[in-house]
Amino acid sequence: MTLYSMPSSGNSYKVRLLLAHLGLPYRHVPLEFESEALAEAHASGILPFGKLPVLELENGKKLAESNAILCYLADGTDWMPADPVTRAEALGWMFWEQNQHEGVIAVRAALQVYASRRHLATPERMASLLDRGHDILGQMDAYLSRRQWLAGDGPSVADISLYAYTHSAGTKGGFDLGRFGHVVAWVERVAALPGHIGLWDIPE
Amino acid sequence: MTLYSMPSSGNSYKVRLLLAHLGLPYRHVPLEFESEALAEAHASGILPFGKLPVLELENGKKLAESNAILCYLADGTDWMPADPVTRAEALGWMFWEQNQHEGVIAVRAALQVYASRRHLATPERMASLLDRGHDILGQMDAYLSRRQWLAGDGPSVADISLYAYTHSAGTKGGFDLGRFGHVVAWVERVAALPGHIGLWDIPE
Repeated sequence: MTLYSMPSSGNSYKVRLLLAHLGLPYRHVPLEFESEALAEAHASGILPFGKLPVLELENGKKLAESNAILCYLADGTDWMPADPVTRAEALGWMFWEQNQHEGVIAVRAALQVYASRRHLATPERMASLLDRGHDILGQMDAYLSRRQWLAGDGPSVADISLYAYTHSAGTKGGFDLGRFGHVVAWVERVAALPGHIGLWDIPE
Repeated sequence: MTLYSMPSSGNSYKVRLLLAHLGLPYRHVPLEFESEALAEAHASGILPFGKLPVLELENGKKLAESNAILCYLADGTDWMPADPVTRAEALGWMFWEQNQHEGVIAVRAALQVYASRRHLATPERMASLLDRGHDILGQMDAYLSRRQWLAGDGPSVADISLYAYTHSAGTKGGFDLGRFGHVVAWVERVAALPGHIGLWDIPE
């Protein structure tokens, strides 16, 4: 397998993190934001839909969408809940991540971190994203006040997916994670799992 | 099963449409946008995460997130591709739907259709959504120029999911569907499937 991933991106990190937990070998092609290599990849058309990450299988087939790649890799392993209702809960969190969480938590971080986006970070937009992000983190916090993991009694593909942008919501996004103690405890639980790697633990 | 759904909402329609195709009986609780019944449902806390649709199972367990409910219902049927790569493609479209498509195609329609949102429909916002929506429809059109269905050789849960807001992108959202002939042909293919129901074919 070959993974085309953006080192600094949470969506790409999700896939690298699950691959590390699964112990699967793969070739890594880093394509950083605003890099020459990414511009060349776009120009050559090797990225379907023009987005990262992309997982290229041995037969040349390419899979897009981080959470769909997670499901593909997790199917049949302990990371995908076998119980249909628990699986629906895991998928529910992952669709929620793409619909509610990523467009606020990740977007505010990107506006702060990537130089080319800073001109879009108007005070009004940043204040609105801050309020919406705290509401979103509050929803996770309320749920995690009653549960150790997002779906079922152990870690799943949903925890991998939500961890990617949540763990850096404070440092990169400027959100006040200290208000959400159950989220902070869950972040620590995910990071303490055997086989965990950080966002910058990039394969050679 | 009991389905709490918003009659006018595409996310709710997705689930009603798949339930019709599967021929599964269910009790329907309609909770229309801006209705007294929906306000009461919110106040009584019967909707986890406060969103619709919600599928309540016989054991009282409630599932949220339209696309996760679709996966739960489709698993083990012809609507969920059995091949892992094709399944990943179907899920990829559904995550894309929640991340890219719904926040533009559905949001622009909601700004036009729901009276309480019209004050948010500034000319700048509507123009931006129009451009982004045409780009999104263009991505679907390019893909559907080479394929009859979104994942694999037959209709799947991905077609149900994407159909919900795409079929009314012109009439409700004001997008120029005429520019996207492959999308229009695909909309007609989905609507011609045996067992198809329209958004307003609401169960008694």
